[in-house]
Amino acid sequence: MAATSSVAAAQALVGRAISGRAAANPTHPDRLALPAGFGLSSLSGRRLRSARGRQERSPRAAAPAQPRAAAVETLEGKAGTAALVMKSINTIRFLAVDAVEKANSGHPGLPMGCAPMGHILYDEVMRYNPKNPYWFNRDRFVLSAGHGCMLQYALLHLAGYDSVLDEDLKNFRQWGSRTPGHPENFETPGVEVTTGPLGQGIANAVGLALVERHLAARFNKPDNEIVDHYTYVILGDGCQMEGVSNEACSLAGHWGLGKLIAFYDDNHISIDGDTEIAFTEDVNARFEALGWHTIWVKNGNTGYDDIRAAILEAKAVKDKPTLIKVTTTIGYGSPNKANSYSVHGSALGAKEVEATRQNLGWPYEPFHVPEDVKSHWSRHITEGAALEAQWNAKFAEYERKYKEEAAELKTIISGELPAGWETALPTYTPESSADATRNLSQQCLNALVNVLPGFLGGSADLASSNMTLLKKFGDFQKSTPEERNLRFGVREHGMGAISNGIVHHSPGLFPYCATFFVFTDYMRAAIRISALSESGVIYVMTHDSIGLGEDGPTHQPIEHLMSFRAMPNILMLRPADGNETAGAYKVAVLNRKRPSILALSRQKLPQLAGTSIEGVEKGGYIVSDDSNDNKPDIILIGSGSELEIAVKAAGELRKEGKTVRVVSLVSWELFDEQSDEYKESVFPAAVAARVSIEAGATVGWEKFIGGKGKAIGIDRFGASAPAGKIYKEFGLTAENVVAVAKSL
Amino acid sequence: MAATSSVAAAQALVGRAISGRAAANPTHPDRLALPAGFGLSSLSGRRLRSARGRQERSPRAAAPAQPRAAAVETLEGKAGTAALVMKSINTIRFLAVDAVEKANSGHPGLPMGCAPMGHILYDEVMRYNPKNPYWFNRDRFVLSAGHGCMLQYALLHLAGYDSVLDEDLKNFRQWGSRTPGHPENFETPGVEVTTGPLGQGIANAVGLALVERHLAARFNKPDNEIVDHYTYVILGDGCQMEGVSNEACSLAGHWGLGKLIAFYDDNHISIDGDTEIAFTEDVNARFEALGWHTIWVKNGNTGYDDIRAAILEAKAVKDKPTLIKVTTTIGYGSPNKANSYSVHGSALGAKEVEATRQNLGWPYEPFHVPEDVKSHWSRHITEGAALEAQWNAKFAEYERKYKEEAAELKTIISGELPAGWETALPTYTPESSADATRNLSQQCLNALVNVLPGFLGGSADLASSNMTLLKKFGDFQKSTPEERNLRFGVREHGMGAISNGIVHHSPGLFPYCATFFVFTDYMRAAIRISALSESGVIYVMTHDSIGLGEDGPTHQPIEHLMSFRAMPNILMLRPADGNETAGAYKVAVLNRKRPSILALSRQKLPQLAGTSIEGVEKGGYIVSDDSNDNKPDIILIGSGSELEIAVKAAGELRKEGKTVRVVSLVSWELFDEQSDEYKESVFPAAVAARVSIEAGATVGWEKFIGGKGKAIGIDRFGASAPAGKIYKEFGLTAENVVAVAKSL
Repeated sequence: MAATSSVAAAQALVGRAISGRAAANPTHPDRLALPAGFGLSSLSGRRLRSARGRQERSPRAAAPAQPRAAAVETLEGKAGTAALVMKSINTIRFLAVDAVEKANSGHPGLPMGCAPMGHILYDEVMRYNPKNPYWFNRDRFVLSAGHGCMLQYALLHLAGYDSVLDEDLKNFRQWGSRTPGHPENFETPGVEVTTGPLGQGIANAVGLALVERHLAARFNKPDNEIVDHYTYVILGDGCQMEGVSNEACSLAGHWGLGKLIAFYDDNHISIDGDTEIAFTEDVNARFEALGWHTIWVKNGNTGYDDIRAAILEAKAVKDKPTLIKVTTTIGYGSPNKANSYSVHGSALGAKEVEATRQNLGWPYEPFHVPEDVKSHWSRHITEGAALEAQWNAKFAEYERKYKEEAAELKTIISGELPAGWETALPTYTPESSADATRNLSQQCLNALVNVLPGFLGGSADLASSNMTLLKKFGDFQKSTPEERNLRFGVREHGMGAISNGIVHHSPGLFPYCATFFVFTDYMRAAIRISALSESGVIYVMTHDSIGLGEDGPTHQPIEHLMSFRAMPNILMLRPADGNETAGAYKVAVLNRKRPSILALSRQKLPQLAGTSIEGVEKGGYIVSDDSNDNKPDIILIGSGSELEIAVKAAGELRKEGKTVRVVSLVSWELFDEQSDEYKESVFPAAVAARVSIEAGATVGWEKFIGGKGKAIGIDRFGASAPAGKIYKEFGLTAENVVAVAKSL
Repeated sequence: MAATSSVAAAQALVGRAISGRAAANPTHPDRLALPAGFGLSSLSGRRLRSARGRQERSPRAAAPAQPRAAAVETLEGKAGTAALVMKSINTIRFLAVDAVEKANSGHPGLPMGCAPMGHILYDEVMRYNPKNPYWFNRDRFVLSAGHGCMLQYALLHLAGYDSVLDEDLKNFRQWGSRTPGHPENFETPGVEVTTGPLGQGIANAVGLALVERHLAARFNKPDNEIVDHYTYVILGDGCQMEGVSNEACSLAGHWGLGKLIAFYDDNHISIDGDTEIAFTEDVNARFEALGWHTIWVKNGNTGYDDIRAAILEAKAVKDKPTLIKVTTTIGYGSPNKANSYSVHGSALGAKEVEATRQNLGWPYEPFHVPEDVKSHWSRHITEGAALEAQWNAKFAEYERKYKEEAAELKTIISGELPAGWETALPTYTPESSADATRNLSQQCLNALVNVLPGFLGGSADLASSNMTLLKKFGDFQKSTPEERNLRFGVREHGMGAISNGIVHHSPGLFPYCATFFVFTDYMRAAIRISALSESGVIYVMTHDSIGLGEDGPTHQPIEHLMSFRAMPNILMLRPADGNETAGAYKVAVLNRKRPSILALSRQKLPQLAGTSIEGVEKGGYIVSDDSNDNKPDIILIGSGSELEIAVKAAGELRKEGKTVRVVSLVSWELFDEQSDEYKESVFPAAVAARVSIEAGATVGWEKFIGGKGKAIGIDRFGASAPAGKIYKEFGLTAENVVAVAKSL
């Protein structure tokens, strides 16, 4: 298993012919030819529906290849006989078939087709410790085509992970099980990231591989390569079609992430049928254009040695990520459903399960793992423990020689926050100079990077607008991977999904990523996965309202604050000044299991009296109040850049003899978590005269202003004009707040 | 100008050498070599920061090339002398420079670099009628890099469009102007689509080109090609990085949209500086992998003939779209800021404007259009009118010979709805069989396609799940472009942006597009542009809640309903059964200036008593009520699949002697538009006991349930289990509604 321990033997295999490297077929590299080793009895020569000049290919790949008589040399010489390998591969297939059948729900097709590469990865190639799924130096695996999760569950089960026991397989897709319908890192130890929404998994993998490269560059020494693992991923046609995968893979090529090895399950079937109807591009040529090394394994069904050789070739290419296109048959083994849409996302049905058992010569009852297969896989428990123990010894050696670096790496591995880290955050007084919260944010970022070794991040080509550069550091690039400024280019979705990968590499990583707040629309799918998968990514979102001015309505968020307040497990923070920005960062750093979005202004804002980090931590708090007995005449509620307006309006109203409370509502989620008593102390039920002001949609504000209050906001799209003009035209002024307050 | 009228002359030019075709430089096709015709005096040989082996290139392209002494032959032989062409190009540059300077806001860099291709397109190539920006058979132009909108405004101004007069240029980016900060179709006739959020414009252009190909295939006759125009687009580095552009361009290649010609403004500068830091892929090679024809014009600054020849070559390739990579210098002409980030998004400043005037030999005052330039462009008014008149005559001829087709095409051109179209919609009684609203939706789609000639659409690889196939039609494919089922593949964002292009081609087009509701996250940026740009796209979003069951939380929408209710100018519709689904489609068809999202169930739902199309049109209405005097004991409010639960709970409560009103709240937006009187008739202020039930986030429901009501919903992520189980565990049951109602 340990690739590094047998480099010589491994390299010897590289010389083998790999049938079907894309480069070897320049005329039609992406079209499927009948694989050489594919000569199965049932290949009776039916033709595909496609009218195109594609070569003949069987619509049904049915009978298995005969097991080879002699033992073959496998990657590490440990994998057992060919017969046992095939048995193991069929075990994987039938665990998937049986689990989907029992649930009467799920996706058997991918596991049946990808079982060979799955087996080779988990049994022959990957380095992991099943009894400690969180061992730092493990190889990472991501199933980007997450619907095929039974593949991964079967592999984790065989490998000896405690998270997928026999009963878990039998509980596939049931309430409370550890084997949900798509892989979820928070349900199943051994699953690195949450996938299912297509295309994001490969981007997560780019993030994982980025971290390996970064930490290796920072911490490895000539005599001790303490950080050293691969990131493997399986992605399907659907992942390839999604734009996010192209974004992330363009970056992976740019960064030269040589230890990222992606298997493209090229099965030519998606939900709508043959991919011929919507997806005829030359995928490997595209990846070469993106700077990847590419390989084509033409027979992914039975060409085990080709898969092995491809992995070795990929490992030998150190300056580029590798895409291994593996042509497979979806639902391989099912005599009547293989190579068809019907095996993609439905149970085979009892009759076809039986036919598949016959076809693959599988006499066992459902969920049975044959003893020899079980015994063969059992070594991973001891080997995994040994791998981790070896690494621990290596780390002890590292710690002895490189004390300072070891301490830093340890905080990244453990996630423990250095004592007193929060004192690094800046604080402000009302006398501090006015500034945009995006600038104040930059002060926080540059303060935090001094105290948090795992702090890194960047922007989607807006570093100088989002104000996100870490001044002490250079750019993370192919030649400078030890640096911490990430340059994502104009790729918001890829940025978010890569950040989700980064944060799940190790607990002490704090990735932040930035764009204009309105462009959360481009990356919303990744932000949702952050929230769902308990990923403490910090989203630095500047230009958070019409206050950005002339760029106009395409660039002005309106509905965005509310749209995130409706999303579970995410913190939507909108700080009003320096203290609140520092508070928002404190909250973001502390919340490792939910992402934080910081909505920050482009425009300058004053430092207000009464704001505080502690206030932000409560979500909402009183900034000023001149009443007694928790009974002001009126409560004005503001957030972010509009808190200033509320404060001004309060001044006017007080001049007219009213008692006024000003509340800063930085985060609805945090406020919701406070005690009823605290909530009543901020919003006393007896005070119905309430006015909110926020440069965004008003829907939802009824929660705080009640039936008798008024919400000042924006329920139309913005406009292109200087910011002050738009604020005035839209009624977001102290005068209007005063007028509305008096009308109550 | 009329390309078709001088095919022979045009073809003669194809033979010219086009310097720099990508294929001619296989070693490094995407890296910039110093263009041959680029030998300007100031090219003093500074080196780029990049450490890579890129060839020497000037960071500043300053002095203009000398005008050639003799007149050159231009594309159609009408473009005037070379000196005049250069003068026109500089006019475009300075209109942009001056407008940005006056506004002290905007993006001068792109217009200065792209002025040559802009001039050639609008003055020499495109067929349009400035006095009728909506002439059906016009060539379409999309500025995907929308921040460079001053390029388009300058061109529209010169071409004689009434939408961009002298005062409009001077009002650039000001309140109420017709020249906003990014191009907006609803502000400026002549602008086809709203761009700015990067990458979407090229996808819009794919939609426009798709329509041309579709309508041409449906309506053209051997003796009368009544539909015949090109779609041109300029996109920048930012557009290229965004995943959505890869999605749309993969489809354009697949569909073989030969009349789509895209100019890639390859200026190597984005906001973060040199694209070298994040974008080093080989773009032309990627496009070839996507099935495009590609050309590289190495000198886009002064190589006018190369640009012209590239366009002719592109037109000659009829079975593939063409990408013309045009290497330009951002801010061309500015001696100190060209080829730098600083010219991308800020005014040059008075000093640099003056230096640029000196450098380009431009003696005129701001906003001045020299008389000879004005006079040269003035012909477009008469020529445009003639083009339209010729086409009108052609159409009259067409109508005479092909009466039926002409009538159909006319409804597509005019957008007039056929009388009685809505009677095609199905209706149901409580006795009609229970069905999922996704299936009922399919009945509506197949009914509407019979009566609306411009009805077409499809799904992002979920046709059989979204139930969106039009049974009478085949697939729109390269070889069958007359068909109406669009197969978008797993490309939600591209699908939405393409649909925005389709809808803006002609008023009588009704594109629908479909995916799972949760994957609106992938296409939210396109949906927002639908809403902003008044695009009546119909979004068919199935699997709209935890009711989809086992696929689990990655696939179960929670916050999505509310997130769209917060978005301006969009209709979020959640029908409960057959009648309501028909009502939702009626609303969607009638609302041509705002998009509609239909949230539809995967699971079977009964046909309820009291539901109606008319009710849906009001947004919310009473489904049943056993009280008198508009004063029930309790009001139960449901939407979509939960209306059934509200109805059941009402039955239980009535058995216990309560008077109960059940309200179906299909669309908050439509309900908001009703009179206060109607609203009071549905939700009487006197009845505070209200319970809402909806399988989604509860934030925002205070609006209808008031301070004393209760909202039953879901404020966490979903779960992987059978749907019924999740409903029960989450308390979305009639029993729970009854219990909550009794607690009030």
